[in-house]
Amino acid sequence: MTPSPLRIGIAGVGRMGRHHASNIAHRVLGASLVAACSPVADELKWARENLGTPDVYTDYAKMLAHPGLDAVFLATPTTLHADQIVAALEAGQHVFSEKPLALNLADCLRVEAVAAKHPKQVAMIGYVRRFDPSYRDAFAKIQAGVIGRPFRARSQTADQNDASGFFVRYAAASGGILLDMSVHDIDTVRWLLGAGGARRVFATGTIAVHEGLRDVPDVDNAVATIEFNDGQIATIYASRTMAHGHETLTEIVGTAGRLIVGQNPRLNRVEIADAHGVRNECTPTFYERFADAFQNEAQAFVDVIREGKPPPLTLADATEATRIGIAVTESLRTRKMVEL
Amino acid sequence: MTPSPLRIGIAGVGRMGRHHASNIAHRVLGASLVAACSPVADELKWARENLGTPDVYTDYAKMLAHPGLDAVFLATPTTLHADQIVAALEAGQHVFSEKPLALNLADCLRVEAVAAKHPKQVAMIGYVRRFDPSYRDAFAKIQAGVIGRPFRARSQTADQNDASGFFVRYAAASGGILLDMSVHDIDTVRWLLGAGGARRVFATGTIAVHEGLRDVPDVDNAVATIEFNDGQIATIYASRTMAHGHETLTEIVGTAGRLIVGQNPRLNRVEIADAHGVRNECTPTFYERFADAFQNEAQAFVDVIREGKPPPLTLADATEATRIGIAVTESLRTRKMVEL
Amino acid sequence: MTPSPLRIGIAGVGRMGRHHASNIAHRVLGASLVAACSPVADELKWARENLGTPDVYTDYAKMLAHPGLDAVFLATPTTLHADQIVAALEAGQHVFSEKPLALNLADCLRVEAVAAKHPKQVAMIGYVRRFDPSYRDAFAKIQAGVIGRPFRARSQTADQNDASGFFVRYAAASGGILLDMSVHDIDTVRWLLGAGGARRVFATGTIAVHEGLRDVPDVDNAVATIEFNDGQIATIYASRTMAHGHETLTEIVGTAGRLIVGQNPRLNRVEIADAHGVRNECTPTFYERFADAFQNEAQAFVDVIREGKPPPLTLADATEATRIGIAVTESLRTRKMVEL
Amino acid sequence: MTPSPLRIGIAGVGRMGRHHASNIAHRVLGASLVAACSPVADELKWARENLGTPDVYTDYAKMLAHPGLDAVFLATPTTLHADQIVAALEAGQHVFSEKPLALNLADCLRVEAVAAKHPKQVAMIGYVRRFDPSYRDAFAKIQAGVIGRPFRARSQTADQNDASGFFVRYAAASGGILLDMSVHDIDTVRWLLGAGGARRVFATGTIAVHEGLRDVPDVDNAVATIEFNDGQIATIYASRTMAHGHETLTEIVGTAGRLIVGQNPRLNRVEIADAHGVRNECTPTFYERFADAFQNEAQAFVDVIREGKPPPLTLADATEATRIGIAVTESLRTRKMVEL
Repeated sequence: MTPSPLRIGIAGVGRMGRHHASNIAHRVLGASLVAACSPVADELKWARENLGTPDVYTDYAKMLAHPGLDAVFLATPTTLHADQIVAALEAGQHVFSEKPLALNLADCLRVEAVAAKHPKQVAMIGYVRRFDPSYRDAFAKIQAGVIGRPFRARSQTADQNDASGFFVRYAAASGGILLDMSVHDIDTVRWLLGAGGARRVFATGTIAVHEGLRDVPDVDNAVATIEFNDGQIATIYASRTMAHGHETLTEIVGTAGRLIVGQNPRLNRVEIADAHGVRNECTPTFYERFADAFQNEAQAFVDVIREGKPPPLTLADATEATRIGIAVTESLRTRKMVEL
Repeated sequence: MTPSPLRIGIAGVGRMGRHHASNIAHRVLGASLVAACSPVADELKWARENLGTPDVYTDYAKMLAHPGLDAVFLATPTTLHADQIVAALEAGQHVFSEKPLALNLADCLRVEAVAAKHPKQVAMIGYVRRFDPSYRDAFAKIQAGVIGRPFRARSQTADQNDASGFFVRYAAASGGILLDMSVHDIDTVRWLLGAGGARRVFATGTIAVHEGLRDVPDVDNAVATIEFNDGQIATIYASRTMAHGHETLTEIVGTAGRLIVGQNPRLNRVEIADAHGVRNECTPTFYERFADAFQNEAQAFVDVIREGKPPPLTLADATEATRIGIAVTESLRTRKMVEL
Repeated sequence: MTPSPLRIGIAGVGRMGRHHASNIAHRVLGASLVAACSPVADELKWARENLGTPDVYTDYAKMLAHPGLDAVFLATPTTLHADQIVAALEAGQHVFSEKPLALNLADCLRVEAVAAKHPKQVAMIGYVRRFDPSYRDAFAKIQAGVIGRPFRARSQTADQNDASGFFVRYAAASGGILLDMSVHDIDTVRWLLGAGGARRVFATGTIAVHEGLRDVPDVDNAVATIEFNDGQIATIYASRTMAHGHETLTEIVGTAGRLIVGQNPRLNRVEIADAHGVRNECTPTFYERFADAFQNEAQAFVDVIREGKPPPLTLADATEATRIGIAVTESLRTRKMVEL
Repeated sequence: MTPSPLRIGIAGVGRMGRHHASNIAHRVLGASLVAACSPVADELKWARENLGTPDVYTDYAKMLAHPGLDAVFLATPTTLHADQIVAALEAGQHVFSEKPLALNLADCLRVEAVAAKHPKQVAMIGYVRRFDPSYRDAFAKIQAGVIGRPFRARSQTADQNDASGFFVRYAAASGGILLDMSVHDIDTVRWLLGAGGARRVFATGTIAVHEGLRDVPDVDNAVATIEFNDGQIATIYASRTMAHGHETLTEIVGTAGRLIVGQNPRLNRVEIADAHGVRNECTPTFYERFADAFQNEAQAFVDVIREGKPPPLTLADATEATRIGIAVTESLRTRKMVEL
C-alpha cells in the first residue's frame, strides 16, 4: 500500500456529488479530497464550507491540472461523462464516474479505447450495488453455489413518487427511464448471473402518474425482458411512482434455491404495530438505501489504486450495461422486440 | 369407528357457543348436533334458525335426557363448568367444556374424581391452541428435537382494545385477567415444554386504559413468571389493550434453536405497501386466529370418542393450568412471590 | 335458497378430483355428492371408500343420466373439458370444470355458444385464486381504492421441483407451461387489474433442470409480458423447479400503493431460529396453499346455483385467459412478439 | 465548535477496545487518537500497527499525563471502571467508559461525586443502544406519541452460544449474567419508557448448556421482571445460548400501539429460499449488530465535548442501571422478590 493518501478532486457537487465528496473527505481511508469543481457557485460554496479546505475550480480542465492530483470523481451530468473520463485519463488521472458511462455506444467504446492506452490508470464506473453489503453477500453466496446454477433474475429500481414531477423536465436528458434507472439492474443481473451479452430484449411501459412525460416521450413505469447469450433470462422493472419509498430489489433464481436482495425496503430495525397493522417504514430514497455502498465504493476505488489491483468492474461491464440499456430503450420506443 | 354419527347437544349458544355449534352442525365429520340449550330466548332462536333442526331446551338437565344423546358441548359461563361436567358424566355423556375447567382447585379435583368413576366417558377441556395447526407443528418439531431440549417459554394472549370497556363489568366473574386469558398460555407452555407442575410464580400488572378495573380489582395488562418443577421457565403476558389486533404468541427456546408461533398476527397473505410503510393487517379477535383450531378441536373430541382413544389432553392438564392460574392471580393480588 | 341439497356427480377422481370430491362430500353446505365417474378402477375404489356411498360410473354419459343429478364437477384431463361441459349442459346439468376451459379458442367459443343456449344453468371454470381469502381481500382493497388506480401486475406460479421429472411425460398434453400454469396468473391479473383483453404479448423461457422437455418441446421456467388493451402491464413467471416449495404470488401496483399476495409462501405461523437463520417452512404444493380456496370455490358454485345468482366469473373470462395463454405460448415457441 | 480535533487516549485494546480505537482513529470526525494504554504487549503491538501512530503506554496514569490529552476512552475490565474514571476526571480529562459504571452502588456514587466536582468535564457511560439508529428512531417515535403512553417493555440480550464455554471462566468477574448483559436492557427500557427508579424486581434463571456456571454460581439464561416507580413494567431476558446469532430486542407497548426494535436479527437485506425454507442469516455477535451505534456513540461523545453540551445520558442513568442490575441479580441469587 502506498504510504501517502490518494489526492482526489471531485467534479460536480450537486446531490450525488456531495455524498461522494463527503465520503472522500471524511470516511474513506487513504484518500484526501484536495479539489472540487463546479460551474455552480452554490455548489462551490457548499464545498468550501463542508469539505475541509479543498481548492475549488469552475473549470474542469484546470482542476485536472491541480498540483499532485491523483484521481478524479465525476458526479456530473451523464452527457459529460465520456469526455471528462477521457480528459482525466489523458491528464494522467485515475477516474471514477457515476453511471452510466454514456448514453450511446460510440462514447462507451471511445472511452474504452482511451483507457486501453492508459493501462496503469484505473477507470471505474459507479455501479454502486456491487459495493452494497447485501448485494455482495448475495454474489458471494451465488459463487459458493448456495442456489445452484443461477438462470433467472428479476430486478427493479423503484423510486418514491415525487408529486411535484420535478424530474419530468430532466427526462429527455436522462436517456429515458430504462437508461437512467434500469442500467443499475442490467449491471446487477449481469454480475449476479455471471452473464455476458444479451441476444434479444423486449420492453414496454406506461405513464401512471406524470402525464408530462408524454411529450418527452418517456414513461414513469416500464418493464423489460432480457435474454442473455447463455440463456439466462432477466425481467426488469423501473418505476418513478411508488407510494412507500425507494425499493431496489433483485431476485436471482437458481437450480437449488433463490436469493432476494431488498425485498422489503426497511428503513431500519423498528417494527410498528398500530391501527395500520404490523408495519415498517421504508427507505425514502436510494441514498438512505445505499449510503454504506457509496462509502464502500469510494473506498474500493481508492484501495484498488493504492494496491495496484484491477478494479472490481470494468469499462466493458459499463459498456455492456449501456448497450443493453439502449436496446431496451429502443424496444420501449419502437414497440418491437430488439435483437442484439 | 362407530358407524353412526355422534349425537351432540350444546349448552350455551352465545358467542363461543355459536362457533362450536356451527362447527358441529356443519363441519365436523361423524357428528350430528341434535340439541341446544340456553336460558336465553335469543340464543335458542338463533339455534333454531342456523343449526338445522336441533331440539332446543332451556333446562340443561332436560337436554342431558335428550333421547340418544351421546355427548355435550359446554360453552357456558366458567362458574357453571364444573357442575355441568359432573352432571353430564353422571348422565352417561361424553363432555367437552370450554376452558377453564374451574376458577378454584376444589372444583377441578371434584370433576377429576367424578370422571375417574366414568373411565369410558371422555371429558375434555377446550385448550384450543393444542388443535391449532401452527401450534401442533411447533409441538411436533419440539418432539422431533429441532430445537434441542426446550427450557424457556414466553407466551402471550393479547386482545385488541375494546374502547367501550364492555368487558369491565364481567371482569369480576372472569377470575381476573390471568385466569381468564393466561390459562391458555399456561397450558400451552406446559404442553410445549413438556413441563409438569410449577414450584413458584411471580406476577404483576398495570391498568393501562380501563380505570374501571380498579374497583374489581383487576388490571388490563399483566405479566407473570412461572418456574416449573423441572427448572423450565416461562414468562407470560396478558393484555386487553392492543391497538393492532389479537396477538396470541408463544416462543419456545431450546438448546439448539427457538420456535415462535404467531409472531406477527397476519390476517392473511396480503402485504400492503403505501404511505404507512410495508404492512399487513392483523387478526382482529382470537376467533379469526383460531377458527381452524376450533374446528379441529371439535373434530378431535368426536374422533377420540368414536375411535375409543384417550383425549389429547387430560382433566389433570386442565387442573394444573387452573392451579398455576390461581397462583399467578394470587401473586398479582398480594404482590408477593407465590410458592406452590 | 332451495331447501334440498344440490346433488352433484364428479368426473375424475385423481389428485384434484379427490380434493373436490372430499370437499363436496364433507365440507360444502347445501350439497350432496351422489355420483363419481372414472375409467380408472383405483379411483372408483377410492371413491367408494372415502366419499360416503356415491354411485360410481365408468362412463361419463351414464353419470349424466344419474337420477336427480343437479350438477357435475369436472376434474378430468384438459382435453376433455370442452366436450364434457357441453354434454353436461345439454343434459341439463350445472357444471363446474377445472381450468383451463380448453387449449384452443374454438373449443372455448363452442362451449360459450352452448352455454348461451342454457342460460339457467351455471357453467363455471375453476380459477381457484378468485376464491382464496387473501386474493379476495386484495380484490376488495383494490375495489376500495386502497392502492389508487392499478396499472401494473406481476404474478407467478412456481412449483417445487419434482426431481423425478414425472411431469415431463405429461408436458405435451398440458399445452405447455404457460397454458398449464400461467392461465391462473392471466386470469388473476385480469381480475385484479380490471383488465379486458390483451393487445400484445412477449414470452421467453429456459430449461433449467428438466432436459427431457427439449423434445416436447417445452421449458421448465418461462416469463411473459402482457400489455392489456387499456394499457395495464403484467409480467408473468412460471417455474417448475423451485427449491423451497410452491409459491403463488401476485403483486399489483397502483398509483397510491402496492399489494402483494403470497410474498413468502409460509406453511403456517411457525418461525424457526436455528443454525440456518430465522426461517419459516413453505407450502409444498398448491394444494396446501389453496385448500381453503378450493372449499370456498365449491361452496360458491353451490351457492350461486341455489340462490339463482350469476357465477362470480364467466365463461368469457375463461375464454380470455385461454386466448392470452395461447398467445404467450405462441410467443414462447416462435420467439416473436405476438399481437392479438 | 472548537477548531482542533479532540485528542483521545484509549485504555484497553482488547476486543471492544479495538472497535473503539478504530472508530476514533478512522471514523469519528473532530477526534484524533493520540495514545493507547494496555498492560498486554499484544494489544499494544496491535495498536501500533493499526491505529496510525499513537503513543503507547503500559501504565494508565502515565497515559493520563500524555501532553495535550483531552479525553480518555475506557474499554477495560469492569472492576477498573470506577477508579479509572475518577483518575481521568481528576487529571482534567473528559472520559468515556464502557458499561457498566461499576458492579456496586458505592462505586457508582463515588464516581458521581467526583464528577460533580468537575462539571465542565464530560463523563459518559457506553450504553450503546442509545446511539443505534433503530433505537433512536423508536425513542423519537415514542416521544412523538406514535404509541400513546408507553407502559410496558420487554427487552432481551441474547448471544449466540459459544460452544467452547470460554466465557465461563470470566463469569465470576462479570457480576453475573444480569449485571453483565441485562444492564443494557435496563438502561434501554428506562430510556424508552421514560421511567425513573424501580420499586421491586423478581428474577430467576437456569443453566441450559454450560454446567460449569453452577460453581460460579451463575446461569446462562435468566429472566427478570422490573416494576418501576411510576407503574411501568419491564420483563428482561438474557441468554448466552442462542443457536441463530446475537439477538438484541426491545418491545415497548403503549396505549396506542407497540414498537419492536430488532425482532429478527437480520444480518443484511438478503433473503434465501431453499430446502430450509424462506430464511435470513443473523448477526453473529453484538458488534455486527451495533457497529454503526458504536461509531455514533464515539461521535456523540466527541460532539458534546466540542459543542459544550450535556451528554445524552448521565452518570445518574448509569447508576440507576447498576442499582436495578444489582437488585435483579440479588433476586436471582436469593430466589426472592427484591424491593428497592
